Amino acid sequence: MIKKEFEKYISNYQDFPKKGILFRDILPILANPRIFDNLINEMTKDKFLNECDAIIAIDARGFIFGTAIAIKLAKPLILARKPGKLPGELISKEYQLEYGNNGLSLQREALKGFNKFSIVDDLLATGGTVNCVSQILMEQQKKILGLSVVVELLDLNGSKNFKFPVSSQIKF
Amino acid sequence: MIKKEFEKYISNYQDFPKKGILFRDILPILANPRIFDNLINEMTKDKFLNECDAIIAIDARGFIFGTAIAIKLAKPLILARKPGKLPGELISKEYQLEYGNNGLSLQREALKGFNKFSIVDDLLATGGTVNCVSQILMEQQKKILGLSVVVELLDLNGSKNFKFPVSSQIKF
Repeated sequence: MIKKEFEKYISNYQDFPKKGILFRDILPILANPRIFDNLINEMTKDKFLNECDAIIAIDARGFIFGTAIAIKLAKPLILARKPGKLPGELISKEYQLEYGNNGLSLQREALKGFNKFSIVDDLLATGGTVNCVSQILMEQQKKILGLSVVVELLDLNGSKNFKFPVSSQIKF
Repeated sequence: MIKKEFEKYISNYQDFPKKGILFRDILPILANPRIFDNLINEMTKDKFLNECDAIIAIDARGFIFGTAIAIKLAKPLILARKPGKLPGELISKEYQLEYGNNGLSLQREALKGFNKFSIVDDLLATGGTVNCVSQILMEQQKKILGLSVVVELLDLNGSKNFKFPVSSQIKF
């Protein structure tokens, strides 16, 4: 019932960012403090978020939910960023997006001392970005406990690529 | 004394993202939940953050501190985003960056019903991005109560461009 409430705060834009894509805009949630707080309280119930050593938030909308969850659970927050954004020694990978190509990087230093990670993003589509982060982590012998997203696009079957649990608050 | 503590969690990278720039990396703060929480508690003491109708967070590291502050103060959160990122009817402006050009947009719909805004970002350099957002807001007859940043680069004198108060936790 609460989850149904979240859905009312998603705006839909046909053909954004390009023709054929139905864009699910989560920003109206953020503009409503009570709804945003309820959403984060729902998200933080997941066991894998409570049991991880650190939260990895994906550039850029993932920063919002990753931050909110990390603050609520007092967990370390680490950023997976697009090319050219992070300084220092990086571990990077490329991936294919629903619309175009891109890459993600993590700072090598940031992973030190942590073994179990949970990944947070705004939306799960084909899972390209999450898969990219999870490959980086697995190559570093790190464990991924789970993925938490606000919106999951079930038609695109993103979660079938992962060997860890996926938790989503709104499903389309 | 507490502010001195924050400084220890800033990493410095010479010649990033290009030659001549000394990059101040705030990410080690995020990896330390106690420090991050202390920092947000310090930031949220500012009167203008408590008195505004909504927080505007600037793409992309500003999302982190904007989210943390909005959650703590139960304020609506609005995003100022780079070109091509926001759907819907936008209000946009271009600006000059310390290294290169860029633009920022706000959703017209997101500003409705709010009159007094505070802006949040990670770092104040020349002030180009904040100036861009403040011009958009002023053209919409909105009021800007203040700017809160984690790091302020005093040499670049960014704050002299603004008619509203600037609050920074770490000054270089």
